[in-house]
Amino acid sequence: MKIGIINVTGYAGIELARILYRHPEAEVVSITGRSQAGEMLANALPHLARTSLPIEAEITKSVDVVFSALPQVASAEACIPFVRNNVKVIDISADFRLKNAAEYQQWYGVEHPASDLLENSVYGLTELNRGLIVDAQIIANPGCYPTAALLGLAPAVSNGLIEEQIIIDCKSGVSGAGRGLSMATHFSEVNENVMAYSVGGHRHLPEINQELRRLRTDYEPKTIFQPHLIPMTRGIHDTIYASLTDKINRSVEEAASEITEIYKEYYKSDEFIRVVDAPPQTKQTWGNNDCLIYPTVDKRTGQLVVFSVLDNLVKGAAGQAVQNMNVMFGLPETLGLEQLAIYP
Amino acid sequence: MKIGIINVTGYAGIELARILYRHPEAEVVSITGRSQAGEMLANALPHLARTSLPIEAEITKSVDVVFSALPQVASAEACIPFVRNNVKVIDISADFRLKNAAEYQQWYGVEHPASDLLENSVYGLTELNRGLIVDAQIIANPGCYPTAALLGLAPAVSNGLIEEQIIIDCKSGVSGAGRGLSMATHFSEVNENVMAYSVGGHRHLPEINQELRRLRTDYEPKTIFQPHLIPMTRGIHDTIYASLTDKINRSVEEAASEITEIYKEYYKSDEFIRVVDAPPQTKQTWGNNDCLIYPTVDKRTGQLVVFSVLDNLVKGAAGQAVQNMNVMFGLPETLGLEQLAIYP
Amino acid sequence: MKIGIINVTGYAGIELARILYRHPEAEVVSITGRSQAGEMLANALPHLARTSLPIEAEITKSVDVVFSALPQVASAEACIPFVRNNVKVIDISADFRLKNAAEYQQWYGVEHPASDLLENSVYGLTELNRGLIVDAQIIANPGCYPTAALLGLAPAVSNGLIEEQIIIDCKSGVSGAGRGLSMATHFSEVNENVMAYSVGGHRHLPEINQELRRLRTDYEPKTIFQPHLIPMTRGIHDTIYASLTDKINRSVEEAASEITEIYKEYYKSDEFIRVVDAPPQTKQTWGNNDCLIYPTVDKRTGQLVVFSVLDNLVKGAAGQAVQNMNVMFGLPETLGLEQLAIYP
Amino acid sequence: MKIGIINVTGYAGIELARILYRHPEAEVVSITGRSQAGEMLANALPHLARTSLPIEAEITKSVDVVFSALPQVASAEACIPFVRNNVKVIDISADFRLKNAAEYQQWYGVEHPASDLLENSVYGLTELNRGLIVDAQIIANPGCYPTAALLGLAPAVSNGLIEEQIIIDCKSGVSGAGRGLSMATHFSEVNENVMAYSVGGHRHLPEINQELRRLRTDYEPKTIFQPHLIPMTRGIHDTIYASLTDKINRSVEEAASEITEIYKEYYKSDEFIRVVDAPPQTKQTWGNNDCLIYPTVDKRTGQLVVFSVLDNLVKGAAGQAVQNMNVMFGLPETLGLEQLAIYP
Repeated sequence: MKIGIINVTGYAGIELARILYRHPEAEVVSITGRSQAGEMLANALPHLARTSLPIEAEITKSVDVVFSALPQVASAEACIPFVRNNVKVIDISADFRLKNAAEYQQWYGVEHPASDLLENSVYGLTELNRGLIVDAQIIANPGCYPTAALLGLAPAVSNGLIEEQIIIDCKSGVSGAGRGLSMATHFSEVNENVMAYSVGGHRHLPEINQELRRLRTDYEPKTIFQPHLIPMTRGIHDTIYASLTDKINRSVEEAASEITEIYKEYYKSDEFIRVVDAPPQTKQTWGNNDCLIYPTVDKRTGQLVVFSVLDNLVKGAAGQAVQNMNVMFGLPETLGLEQLAIYP
Repeated sequence: MKIGIINVTGYAGIELARILYRHPEAEVVSITGRSQAGEMLANALPHLARTSLPIEAEITKSVDVVFSALPQVASAEACIPFVRNNVKVIDISADFRLKNAAEYQQWYGVEHPASDLLENSVYGLTELNRGLIVDAQIIANPGCYPTAALLGLAPAVSNGLIEEQIIIDCKSGVSGAGRGLSMATHFSEVNENVMAYSVGGHRHLPEINQELRRLRTDYEPKTIFQPHLIPMTRGIHDTIYASLTDKINRSVEEAASEITEIYKEYYKSDEFIRVVDAPPQTKQTWGNNDCLIYPTVDKRTGQLVVFSVLDNLVKGAAGQAVQNMNVMFGLPETLGLEQLAIYP
Repeated sequence: MKIGIINVTGYAGIELARILYRHPEAEVVSITGRSQAGEMLANALPHLARTSLPIEAEITKSVDVVFSALPQVASAEACIPFVRNNVKVIDISADFRLKNAAEYQQWYGVEHPASDLLENSVYGLTELNRGLIVDAQIIANPGCYPTAALLGLAPAVSNGLIEEQIIIDCKSGVSGAGRGLSMATHFSEVNENVMAYSVGGHRHLPEINQELRRLRTDYEPKTIFQPHLIPMTRGIHDTIYASLTDKINRSVEEAASEITEIYKEYYKSDEFIRVVDAPPQTKQTWGNNDCLIYPTVDKRTGQLVVFSVLDNLVKGAAGQAVQNMNVMFGLPETLGLEQLAIYP
Repeated sequence: MKIGIINVTGYAGIELARILYRHPEAEVVSITGRSQAGEMLANALPHLARTSLPIEAEITKSVDVVFSALPQVASAEACIPFVRNNVKVIDISADFRLKNAAEYQQWYGVEHPASDLLENSVYGLTELNRGLIVDAQIIANPGCYPTAALLGLAPAVSNGLIEEQIIIDCKSGVSGAGRGLSMATHFSEVNENVMAYSVGGHRHLPEINQELRRLRTDYEPKTIFQPHLIPMTRGIHDTIYASLTDKINRSVEEAASEITEIYKEYYKSDEFIRVVDAPPQTKQTWGNNDCLIYPTVDKRTGQLVVFSVLDNLVKGAAGQAVQNMNVMFGLPETLGLEQLAIYP
């Protein structure tokens, strides 16, 4: 299987190169970068020195699948020619996630560059949409926050366990903001600091709501999604709060174990989702493709509280992209993704 | 004014020594430590080398006020003799915070060592209880989390703006866990990691509820208080979510500014509380006694969201203790606490 | 005393504003910034909210002394008009440090903008040049690395204790690189990382050698100065290695204590220099103006090893600048600089 | 190949479990822990949940090789029975590194528990001792510091390029200190801090000198080895300084490239050693088995300066142990160690 990576020098692209290097069925044959075109990848990123590819301005080889790790808008534009040529595309940007072009314009501030392609793109949250991914031509790889949030909420929403008011309080490492320079990612400003951001509404909110609606007819989520920047490189930790419906009619004491069973049943065939029995730590997923989920019920208020953690660059980006590729090409879903978390 | 510090070698005690060193009306005359009694403070803690006090096993000098920075239970036991001798006591531990001895026993697992003193102790959240602090003999200095949470909630609760269901999602630096060794504070385990803890209920919950109830008759809070450990040394960041009552009857767009005005009015005479117009950062309070509060309204759900940040060792512990001392002794409330935050 | 700060929005400028806010004899009356001119300082930097100054494009008030915290070249250009008007200038940039304009051009790559002023500028390492600072009109405030290195070496060089070959291995926090954005200060690149930089020769080397030469006739240092970037915000830790001359003729066992005595004697009147008896930690100087120095002798090789630590933004920049101002204006040298280190 | 791991719950043991999980020829069949015997490994260390082994008090299965990740003394005692039973042993502790039992006693303060075994143990720095490792029964896996230092020095010493005076200035992440609790590894004490430690002489010094002597007849190193603790979890960065001998008779300008060629030639068959052309970063080896080495010559003083970095838990401990196992059992040396560094 021949692979192209567009924008290999951003963090998602770097992570794709690392993961695919060990994928037994994949061969990366062409990579692009923006500012560093012309250099060898080994030079630009010494930890990838074992690869021997030049960074080019364009994908120059024939490929079976192309991954785009460009920012939005630029990504759609780079992907369109491949789509038109029937090359499978996995887009890590947000460009093909929202089905509604008007909503895209509202959140991203520009007209969608290829709105005719939205209908057939598939939201690549593998565990929820595996069936559609098999035959997709365009995969819209989910955002890191939505991956953690949707995996944490799906069993509850699908089974009608929670009311519509949902609070998703997120803590993210800084690599989620990418490799572009900004005051908000300047070491001395971020270190020893916590801050909330995107308080008026973060761009990952509409894709969370869109996918929650697809999980249950007539469910209309009222979601507050509040991200916070944490002084660490990798990791997302979502804490999700929602009121239980009367579907759970056991006592508060028993509700937690009932819900845990429902979650375990829901994900029983998903190798990367681990429903755990204690608060998970982001470090337990560092560098690997797991999402750890711990659902519980606050015994004083009867609220559902779900903790969901993952590595934003793996399950939240490049790892899930490779997982989607495996599904698209009929390979074992875990191929190339066996790496355990590196701890500590 | 002559001062004793019990357990100067923990983080709250260290911070007391630092702050009081520059307090123009205070003289620390006697300090105790547990394992390091016999050593000079300058030796045990080289950054305090300009002090010239020995660490002793007991307070050996006559003092006007004693600060205890011992852990709970041990703290009450150390404070009792001073109380009996009419020396003013400011206890940074949890021992005199809960008015109800049964509740203390439930949360701390031991019978209260001096329950007869609970009635007259004053919960030392300066801005809320200034009038009582003036004449108090025992100040129960609040926990770091409750300080941030109560200051963030007080204007809303006092004015009847919010319903009873409250979610307080907290992110704390590691120094809040003290100087005692544990796997949860071991560098390699904490660094590059976020985790929730005390999921079943944190000991700071009952004091939050107790004080919220005192703010408004018939208000019975249903609080979820969920702390998270963040890889930084200092700082607490609370994100608080609650539904608005119909007291706020303006449109969602206007609700935020109405609430901001209410908050600014509420704290207009409080020099350490700054109601701000953008998400505050913990780093903006590093080393100083401020609490920054940013109330807003989520325009999609109409929920109140309040961000409240402070330095857990200053406004969350030693700084507020000195602020309380100033009030007790009729000094200007900001004396010795003028230090601006150190940034970056 | 009326003060102007040029470029208050960089880290040295921010730190000047913080320190001078509490200086009893100084009043900051005018401040400039580059990108943020027009804003209030309280807005641009919320932790300085208690100041009430606007950021301007130029110093608009009459001042007794102006601090420049601009980068080199720009700084000299901004300082020249004040010098011509007989306003005292303390320049935190490198522009007036090197006496030799040709050497300046060699290291900074441009012709010096005002080489006629170099002769009368004074290198503001307060402890070494106090006498000259009193009457100086231009103070060239030393770099952070040279401050730590020169203070660590001065007693040894002045007393002829060491040979000419010197190795200075430095570890610095990231704030030393300033507030400008670069890949080398991007959080995700710096965190969990150590790297050497400026391997071919760092710009602080010539000022170290220049000042070492001034300490002893005929001493011609052969210095390797190798800085490393460390994942922390503040702090410089220098480890200095040099061979002892035969001036120290005691046994290796006794040499260390002899040298310690020489160091203590050398700095006996310097309140900010503390010769300590154990390896110092950068955290022991966080936010204060101390330099901690620990000289010792390696008993296997007989080499002198000196450890020297300080806060790069205080003693390494803004704090020393204020110390120099105090000396220039006949004030007690420690005025406004009494802040103890904040620990932890 | 059946494998036992003694003390799987320390950091080296954890890392062995992670690496061996993906090793195609190795099966871990029995693991021990001290405090957590009786628990499942998946429980004690959730990131290793895919393993399904219980932690036991003793190795209970027949094994082909046993890794010991116990601290010194305890490790030798645990290894002896296996040695006596002709099971191959790879000891990650220091117990079999020093050939001289008297030297062991001097540095470790106890009599060696099995000094008769020292003669036949092999110092497992794979690249230097590959030939001996093939037939060894006991491998003394090198310390993390000596691995970086010896790899950085070997080409220079073997080729007689440097004088005997060597300075090794090391910066290490905190995981090198292990998982045991101490004030020196307490998060709030280490974070935002740099300090030198073991100033009187670190236990890794004698093994560095022992192995340097073996590289060249009559070479008697005079080594200063000074470690520093850095606020990060993983990574070692050595900066090595030494004077060149007259073997290098080219100009200073050309000396660097001559030396680089010598280094590249020396390691031309070693897949894990990468002689690089720019200062390496510890992050470029995070989680993988590489050692990156950058030799250069300071053009002002003519001194050799070598930078050597690695991941202290991989090439500095568990990774090298697996590399040694591969050599002992005739497997390809890189088997199971193909993981690229995880960046950022």
